[in-house]
Amino acid sequence: MKKILIINTGGTFNKIYDPIKGDLMVDKGSNALEQLSEKWLCDLKILNIIGKDSLDMSNHDRLELLATISHSSYEYIIIIHGTDTMDITAEYLSDGDCQKCIVFTGAMVPYSIDPVEATANLCSAYGYINALKKSGIYIAMNGVMDVYEKVRKDRKLGKFISV
Amino acid sequence: MKKILIINTGGTFNKIYDPIKGDLMVDKGSNALEQLSEKWLCDLKILNIIGKDSLDMSNHDRLELLATISHSSYEYIIIIHGTDTMDITAEYLSDGDCQKCIVFTGAMVPYSIDPVEATANLCSAYGYINALKKSGIYIAMNGVMDVYEKVRKDRKLGKFISV
Amino acid sequence: MKKILIINTGGTFNKIYDPIKGDLMVDKGSNALEQLSEKWLCDLKILNIIGKDSLDMSNHDRLELLATISHSSYEYIIIIHGTDTMDITAEYLSDGDCQKCIVFTGAMVPYSIDPVEATANLCSAYGYINALKKSGIYIAMNGVMDVYEKVRKDRKLGKFISV
Amino acid sequence: MKKILIINTGGTFNKIYDPIKGDLMVDKGSNALEQLSEKWLCDLKILNIIGKDSLDMSNHDRLELLATISHSSYEYIIIIHGTDTMDITAEYLSDGDCQKCIVFTGAMVPYSIDPVEATANLCSAYGYINALKKSGIYIAMNGVMDVYEKVRKDRKLGKFISV
Repeated sequence: MKKILIINTGGTFNKIYDPIKGDLMVDKGSNALEQLSEKWLCDLKILNIIGKDSLDMSNHDRLELLATISHSSYEYIIIIHGTDTMDITAEYLSDGDCQKCIVFTGAMVPYSIDPVEATANLCSAYGYINALKKSGIYIAMNGVMDVYEKVRKDRKLGKFISV
Repeated sequence: MKKILIINTGGTFNKIYDPIKGDLMVDKGSNALEQLSEKWLCDLKILNIIGKDSLDMSNHDRLELLATISHSSYEYIIIIHGTDTMDITAEYLSDGDCQKCIVFTGAMVPYSIDPVEATANLCSAYGYINALKKSGIYIAMNGVMDVYEKVRKDRKLGKFISV
Repeated sequence: MKKILIINTGGTFNKIYDPIKGDLMVDKGSNALEQLSEKWLCDLKILNIIGKDSLDMSNHDRLELLATISHSSYEYIIIIHGTDTMDITAEYLSDGDCQKCIVFTGAMVPYSIDPVEATANLCSAYGYINALKKSGIYIAMNGVMDVYEKVRKDRKLGKFISV
Repeated sequence: MKKILIINTGGTFNKIYDPIKGDLMVDKGSNALEQLSEKWLCDLKILNIIGKDSLDMSNHDRLELLATISHSSYEYIIIIHGTDTMDITAEYLSDGDCQKCIVFTGAMVPYSIDPVEATANLCSAYGYINALKKSGIYIAMNGVMDVYEKVRKDRKLGKFISV
């Protein structure tokens, strides 16, 4: 078994309902992942940074992410990221040329609203990275998993597809 | 992307509550998998056979499973199986020498009671098989995934562990 | 047993997550109530009107609600309403002097996100109206139930309290 | 608002899934009620006794229940009870002639498997008892609520009906 790090950067995966505001917000912690880890009966190694909606993600944030990956002792890293700019961050890391095996994932529906799609995406990424042999930047979403250039969000269908 | 078949043989994964009897029973259909498929926004190819609790699985059932695999056009197959005799059926298929890539999975908690662990197991198997290069018989449960001889159910802990 | 009508006017009770927009919206139908009715094993008589967020409710909408109540053959009516202007609509109906037994309810958390509070509110209103003897305008929320003047939303606590 | 005591005696309402045994068992605590109380944003006063399946309830248990009710300072009491012998215990308390207002409730589906029906039953009982004027023994289940002689479990339909 490989040692895998999950870097949680925020996005829909982590959104929770705030009854006072009557709106959804990104949980700055990793409550969704911790609950998933407990229910899966599997200790996940989680690192929590940035904590933003995909559309608020800046290049400053991307630099922080790249630095975190480069300084980490882990070779196999899953990144939970908002879906709208997942491709931009993947491209950014690809340019960074970090020689690690990185799988992006996230969710169309917050774990706290319905845990199935978020759990399915994260755990497919977890299974995928366990069998991957080559370094590179990958995306695993909605049952589609490949190098990041071959997976993109279809905004009309509301899911990720293979291209 | 590989073409993957999911053969659903029953087990805890598929148990549902019967309010009239006040007890759990194995759903003979694949309602749990179909719901998972819909929520994951991913068409899963499902084949439903046997529909039994793990402890009721006979060698006749195992022969049916082996025949189904051998006659299938799919090279990559996930088998949903009860947890108590998953190792026995894995051994049986190994003796059958079918030269395909097979990943067993299942659940400690029925999908209908709490979908997280069942979804996590199935989808980690789905990600794992997508990146596997060699034929063989594997198990993916509770975040542990390897050739079947190296993964077993720990009855005391109530989860699968690496051995 | 009394014959009870549930008039669904919208509000948080009925909000659902739209994965394409990544936001919550008021379901124009009564899917939440219909699901509740099915799971409770109890045929609820539901009438769907207005379908708005509490803050978008106009006096034109309130007139429609009053007319609907006046023309209805039901003497016992539960109104599902957004929480922010529940008191205004209750006051409006009180001025309308309709001589029926009316209980307002709603939810702080959408049924589709977590069904417990919405179900608890609606069903406490259902039990309450079944034993009420006098016509009047009542509110039943978060375990507090009384004539509408004595129950109000505490915006800081994020729940309804007795005053 | 009346002061209401909830006496939890066990039954399906409180059943939880034990992943080690692969079976359902009655939770000896009141986790379901405590979770409901927290989500409803309403402090419920809970007393936990007996903790048995309906079919295991003995006359010794019923005597304990009657004594608990008689010695309690509460005049309004909800009893959570297994559905199969709810009528027998109601009759028993009726013979005990305790001059309090008592509403029995319970669930066909455990709160832990799907919280909606259990929540709906408990909260309809809560609303009902709040408006009841006369002492007596009542049942509130599946939207039906009346004196206990007029509500019974229909084993074929798998729900409580009015008779």
